Amino acid sequence: MNIKLVLKLVGRVLLIEAAALTVPLAAALIYREDPLPFLLSIAIVAGIGFALSALPAKQQFFTREGFVAVGLIWIFTGLVGALPFILCGYFATPIDAIFESCSGFTTTGSTILTDIESLPKGILFWRAFTHWLGGMGVLVLATAIVPKLGIRSHYLTQAETPGPVFSKLVPKQSQTSKILYTMYFVLTALEVLCLKIAGLPLYDALIHSFSTAGTGGFSNRNASVGAYGNVAVEMIITVFMLLFSVNFAIYFLLLTKKWREAVASDELRFFLAVVLGSTAILTLVNSGVYASLWESFRYTVFQIAAIISTTGFGTADFVLWPQFSQLILVLIMFCGACAGSTGGGMKCSRVLLLLRALRREVHRITHPRSVEVVKLDGKLVSESTLHTLLVFLGGYVITVFAAALVISLDGQSFAVSFSAALTCVSNVGPGLEAIGPSGNFAAFSGLSKAVMSLCMIVGRLEIFPILVLFSPSTWRRT
Amino acid sequence: MNIKLVLKLVGRVLLIEAAALTVPLAAALIYREDPLPFLLSIAIVAGIGFALSALPAKQQFFTREGFVAVGLIWIFTGLVGALPFILCGYFATPIDAIFESCSGFTTTGSTILTDIESLPKGILFWRAFTHWLGGMGVLVLATAIVPKLGIRSHYLTQAETPGPVFSKLVPKQSQTSKILYTMYFVLTALEVLCLKIAGLPLYDALIHSFSTAGTGGFSNRNASVGAYGNVAVEMIITVFMLLFSVNFAIYFLLLTKKWREAVASDELRFFLAVVLGSTAILTLVNSGVYASLWESFRYTVFQIAAIISTTGFGTADFVLWPQFSQLILVLIMFCGACAGSTGGGMKCSRVLLLLRALRREVHRITHPRSVEVVKLDGKLVSESTLHTLLVFLGGYVITVFAAALVISLDGQSFAVSFSAALTCVSNVGPGLEAIGPSGNFAAFSGLSKAVMSLCMIVGRLEIFPILVLFSPSTWRRT
Repeated sequence: MNIKLVLKLVGRVLLIEAAALTVPLAAALIYREDPLPFLLSIAIVAGIGFALSALPAKQQFFTREGFVAVGLIWIFTGLVGALPFILCGYFATPIDAIFESCSGFTTTGSTILTDIESLPKGILFWRAFTHWLGGMGVLVLATAIVPKLGIRSHYLTQAETPGPVFSKLVPKQSQTSKILYTMYFVLTALEVLCLKIAGLPLYDALIHSFSTAGTGGFSNRNASVGAYGNVAVEMIITVFMLLFSVNFAIYFLLLTKKWREAVASDELRFFLAVVLGSTAILTLVNSGVYASLWESFRYTVFQIAAIISTTGFGTADFVLWPQFSQLILVLIMFCGACAGSTGGGMKCSRVLLLLRALRREVHRITHPRSVEVVKLDGKLVSESTLHTLLVFLGGYVITVFAAALVISLDGQSFAVSFSAALTCVSNVGPGLEAIGPSGNFAAFSGLSKAVMSLCMIVGRLEIFPILVLFSPSTWRRT
Repeated sequence: MNIKLVLKLVGRVLLIEAAALTVPLAAALIYREDPLPFLLSIAIVAGIGFALSALPAKQQFFTREGFVAVGLIWIFTGLVGALPFILCGYFATPIDAIFESCSGFTTTGSTILTDIESLPKGILFWRAFTHWLGGMGVLVLATAIVPKLGIRSHYLTQAETPGPVFSKLVPKQSQTSKILYTMYFVLTALEVLCLKIAGLPLYDALIHSFSTAGTGGFSNRNASVGAYGNVAVEMIITVFMLLFSVNFAIYFLLLTKKWREAVASDELRFFLAVVLGSTAILTLVNSGVYASLWESFRYTVFQIAAIISTTGFGTADFVLWPQFSQLILVLIMFCGACAGSTGGGMKCSRVLLLLRALRREVHRITHPRSVEVVKLDGKLVSESTLHTLLVFLGGYVITVFAAALVISLDGQSFAVSFSAALTCVSNVGPGLEAIGPSGNFAAFSGLSKAVMSLCMIVGRLEIFPILVLFSPSTWRRT
C-alpha cells in the first residue's frame, strides 16, 4: 500500500476544498456576517492540504491504492468540511457538524438542524455548496475515474457503470472531466435562471439549484421547497431533480446527436416507467389526503421525484400519506436514480438487471437446454459483471440492516431505525415517522450520528471503497 | 406441460392427506367431539384425490413438470386442509381457514385465532398435525426430491441444498425417504417422551412436539409455551427446536459415525455461532426488562431458538424488548435455519455464502491477479451455484417487500406490514407490534390474508416453484 501517494492525493483535494471555501466566505462578506469561521477553516484546510501534498511519494499506483484514496478523500473532505459549522457556534456538538458536512458532500441532505432559518446566510450557503461540490465529485468518480481505475481491474469496472459508459464515449480523461463539468455547470445555471424567473430571490435560487444539482436536498427554509407555496418553483425543481438523476452519458449522446442510442437506454426507460407509474398510482392513493386530484398530483409528483432522485426536498409531509404510499417511497429509496448521475441508491440499472437475472433463472428451469444471456441496451452483460452486481446488492441490503441495528440502540421505532439507515445509505435525506420531511435527525445519539455519517459515505461510494479501506488484507504487505 | 400427470401426482398426495385426516378424526372421537367436519373433509379430499389420480397421463416428466407439481401440491394441500376448519364453524370466513391451513402445512405458525383454547381438541390436533405433515413434506422435498429433479437441471440443484446433500449420502430414493422418516419420527417421539416426563399432559406433549418437529409454532394454549411456566418444558422445546433446525444429513453422518465430517460443517458452525452469539448479547440487552440475568437468559434463549428455527413459539412478548433486540430478531428471521431441515428462512448456508462472496469481492480488488474461489465445507462452490444463490437472495428480498406493499394497503404501521411479510415468507410465525407473540393476524383484510397465505407457500418452496407456476413461458407450447 503506497499510503504516502494516497495521502498526497488527499492533500490535493483538500487544497481544492480550501479554495471552494472562499465562495461561502464571499457570501458571508456580502451579507456582512462574521467571516472568521471561514477564514480559520480555510487556513486549517489549506495547511493540512499543503502538508499532505508535500509528502514525498513513489508514483506506484494500483487499483488498491485507487480505492483507498477514494475512501479517504471522502472521509477527509467530510471531516474538514465540518470546520465552518463547528466554528460558527450554531451546532451543538462536533459530531452534529460532521453529520451535516457528510450529509452535504455525499449529497444526502439529512439534517440535524431544528431551525434552519436561524443560521447565518454564509453558513447555509456553504451547506448547500457542499452538495454541489459533492455532486461534481460523484459525477467524475462514477463516469470518469472509476472506469479508468478499471484498466487493471476490468472485472469491477463493468459492474460499476452499467449502461452507456462515459469513458468509452470520450477517450481522454481530461476531456471527459471538462465535458462533464460544463454540462453540470450549464444545467445548474439553467435552473438558477428558471427559479429566478419563477420569483425566487437569487440567494434562494442558488441554494436550491446547488441542492438539486447534487441531488442533495438542503434548503435554506425550514419548510424546504414547501415554504414558497409556488407551483412554478415546484415544477421547475421537479424537472431538474429528474434531469440530474439521468446518466450524464445520455446528455452527451444527445449533444452528439445520437438520438436513437440515447432513447434506447434500458435504464432510462426503466427510470421513467418507475417515475410515471408510481406517480400515477400514488396520485390516486393520496387523493384522500388532498382537496383535489390536481393537488394530490402536485405534491405526489414532487415527492416521487425528490425521493427517486435521492434529493429529498419536501413540499408535503409524506408521513401523513397512506402506509401504502410510504412503502412505495421506501422501495424507490432502495432503487434510486440512474448510474452515472449525481443520484444515489442501488441505481435503476442494477435493479433492472436483478429482475432480468431472476427472469432468466425461471426460464432456465422451464427450458433447461436453452442458453440465455442477460442483456442491457441490447448488449450482453457478462456473467462476472452480473456476479459483482448481485454481490453488491447483497452487500447493500446487509449494510442497511447492520446500520439499522446500531441505530436501534437509540430505542426509536423499527420504522425510524430502518428508514434512517436506508435514507443515509441511499443518500436520500428524509425517512419515516420522526425523521420525515417535517422532522430532523437531531434526536439521535452521537454513536448513531457517527454511524449514519459513515453510512452516507459508504452508500455514496457504492460500498466497496470503504470495505477495501477497512479490510485487513488491504494493509498486509505483499 | 404434461398437466395431466402433474394433476395425477396432486391427486395421490391428496389421498395421503385424506388418510392423514383420520388421525384428528380419532382424536375427535376420543374426546367425544363432533366427528362430522372430519368425515365430510375426508370424503371430499378422497373424492378429489381419486378423481385426479385416475387421470390418464403419459409418463413424460421433466424438471418443469416437477416444479409445477411441487407448487400445485402445496397450494392444493393448503386449500383442502382448510376443510375441517371451514366445516367446524369456528372460523369467521373461508379465507381465515385457508390462512390457518397454509400456515400449518408450510410450518409457519401464524394464526388468525383470537381464543385458541375455545376450539375443539380434534380441530387443534389437526392444526398441529399439519405442521408435522408439512415438516415431513419439506424434509423429503429439500433432501430427497429436489436434488433428484436436478439430474436434468444440474444447475439448480446445487444451489438448492448447499452443505452435505442427502441424496449424495444415500443412493436410492426410497431408502433416503425411509431413513428421513425414521429419524423424523424418532426425534418427535423423543420430544413427546421428554415433555411427558417434564409434566405435560400427553395431548399437549403431542401438539407441541408436532409443532416443534415441523418448526411450525401452533400451540393449543393462548399463551403458547409460556402458559405452562415450566422451565423444564421450555428448555426441552428449546433444544428440540434447535435440533430440528439442523440439516438432517448431519444426523445421518453421525449415525454412520462420520463424526469429523459432521462437526466440520460450515453451516452448522455458522448456525451455532449465530444462536450462541445472539443469545449472549440479547441476554444482556434484555436484562433491564427482567428481574434477574437468569430470567433474561431463560426467555431470550427460548425466543432466539424459536425465531431462528422459524418455529415461532412464545414464552415472552418480545414486542416489549428493546428495539435493538427486536431488530436482531428481524435479522435472524431473514437468516432462518440450516438447509435440509424443517426450518424456513433464507437458510444459514446461503447467508454464509453471500458473506464469503462479498469477502472475495473485496479481496479481488486488493489482489487483482489472484484467483480466489468460494468454498463451503472445504469444497469449491461453483460460480453457477453462487449465481443462482445470489439471484435467490435478491428474489427473496423482492418477495418480502412486494408482499409488504400489498399488506400495507390495510394501513397498519410499517413495522407490522414489513414484519408480516417477512414472517410469512420465512415461515416464522409472529411479527412485530400488533402481530407479536401475544397478538394475532385476525385484523388483516381478506386480500392481505390471501397474499400472506401465498407468501408462506412461496417461502416454503424457496420461491422458484411458484415463479415457474405463474410464469407464462411455462405454459407455452414448445
